[in-house]
Amino acid sequence: MLDTLVILAPGLLGGSVAQAARTRGLARRIVIWARRPEVRHKLESQPWCDATAATPEAAVAGATLVVLAAPVDRIMELARQIAPHLPAGAVVTDVGSVKGDVCRAGQIAINGAAHFVGAHPMAGGERTGWEHGSPSLFEKRTVFVTPLPETDPQAVALVARFWADLGGEVSTLHPDRHDEIVAHISHLPQAIATSLGTFLGSKDPAWRNLAGNGLRDTTRIAGSDATMWVEIFQQNRDEVLRALRAYEAELHQFQAAVANRDWLEVRARLERSKAWRDGFRP
Amino acid sequence: MLDTLVILAPGLLGGSVAQAARTRGLARRIVIWARRPEVRHKLESQPWCDATAATPEAAVAGATLVVLAAPVDRIMELARQIAPHLPAGAVVTDVGSVKGDVCRAGQIAINGAAHFVGAHPMAGGERTGWEHGSPSLFEKRTVFVTPLPETDPQAVALVARFWADLGGEVSTLHPDRHDEIVAHISHLPQAIATSLGTFLGSKDPAWRNLAGNGLRDTTRIAGSDATMWVEIFQQNRDEVLRALRAYEAELHQFQAAVANRDWLEVRARLERSKAWRDGFRP
Repeated sequence: MLDTLVILAPGLLGGSVAQAARTRGLARRIVIWARRPEVRHKLESQPWCDATAATPEAAVAGATLVVLAAPVDRIMELARQIAPHLPAGAVVTDVGSVKGDVCRAGQIAINGAAHFVGAHPMAGGERTGWEHGSPSLFEKRTVFVTPLPETDPQAVALVARFWADLGGEVSTLHPDRHDEIVAHISHLPQAIATSLGTFLGSKDPAWRNLAGNGLRDTTRIAGSDATMWVEIFQQNRDEVLRALRAYEAELHQFQAAVANRDWLEVRARLERSKAWRDGFRP
Repeated sequence: MLDTLVILAPGLLGGSVAQAARTRGLARRIVIWARRPEVRHKLESQPWCDATAATPEAAVAGATLVVLAAPVDRIMELARQIAPHLPAGAVVTDVGSVKGDVCRAGQIAINGAAHFVGAHPMAGGERTGWEHGSPSLFEKRTVFVTPLPETDPQAVALVARFWADLGGEVSTLHPDRHDEIVAHISHLPQAIATSLGTFLGSKDPAWRNLAGNGLRDTTRIAGSDATMWVEIFQQNRDEVLRALRAYEAELHQFQAAVANRDWLEVRARLERSKAWRDGFRP
């Protein structure tokens, strides 16, 4: 059990970390900082919040583990802000969707008696805000833990253990490898679904309610928060472009096969894709 | 209540029509023809099958309403085959995913004392075969009814009423307009999901099991039956190409916005798509 778990700037993920940690008895004490006083006031009455702090610096004073739950573009600033105030031995992690720049900056900012170990839980959805948090949000979800080669191994072990204890399935890899993978399995699908939405929105919008579950599922993530996604595309621009351009070529090959009436090729693609999809874990 | 409902070549949709018609008391008698004798044998023990027939011609002898439940490329042949054997006043419908050619051929083949009125229920999924049928398959699902301008209005009314009685939400429109719409809301999403599957399958297939629900939902239809989809792409080639090429241009604009670091444009697209997606009926 951790002595003091500190969560800074909780949204859906940060709130769920607090709830899951309390439910699973992972921390003796949970301290939370939120920027707005009225949010802090609401947090104080939650059973998974033992205390709030008025500043990030004050919040981390007695921290064993700190979770930076802010959006991607705020994490680095927060890391630099708390760095001089961390107790010796404290470990800092985050929940950002892009890891390369954040982990390098975290390593530079927090690299003395305290340690930074990036993380990215593949959980969330269209809803945001700590009010929608759930103690089961991380159950059976992939959580990437992304140390740099020079990161302290004991700190890495503590962070990996923490996310596993929250119910996640931890996958440890280099932050740049992480960014390549999520560009393909998360950011590319978002770009595809968003573009399908803008395209069909430009046709007759009434068509959407004639559709079956296929369109509904294919475009579900088009309903995601725009602010969060702009940040992700900004932070992971290069890997996203690589994935998008390769996908454009793939889609064009499908289109060409239909145009050429190459039905053997169309069938081969449908079968190859089905085999891939059938290999998903249940 | 119909006197005799005849279902030819039942798969998932045909089997579900029989089950729903029985559950909802829509037909006094349900007669089914399936090509293979062992399938007919199995059908005979189902509570929603009163009799089987050895040939399509024999099956339709006393028909009030005939449902052609065969795959798209077999519907026209079946329509021509049964035409001389239909009783006066009989009405024929189908469940094919593409309607233009089928409805014109049906109108030519069945255009005397009997009538053809095409239909397309937006139901189904990755599973096929009448064994997976369900009496609730059509509940709250769009069912397109696609008469030609010259189709007998009473026959249209009967078919629309039948699909509504099965639980569907009937939308009546010209077969060509139908084909344009489904190219966008069904066939295009399939091409997109299939291409995402072939693309990610060509990368590291293990990535699929690191993904969150976003990828799972976006690619669910990639698991659909290849044979069925080759036929749909063949039958609706021109409309599919139009939709695919316009979508390629839309996706490319998203890619260009990311490449140009035009984050205002990226945000505008995310917001427009979200607004469209949020307008789905619950």
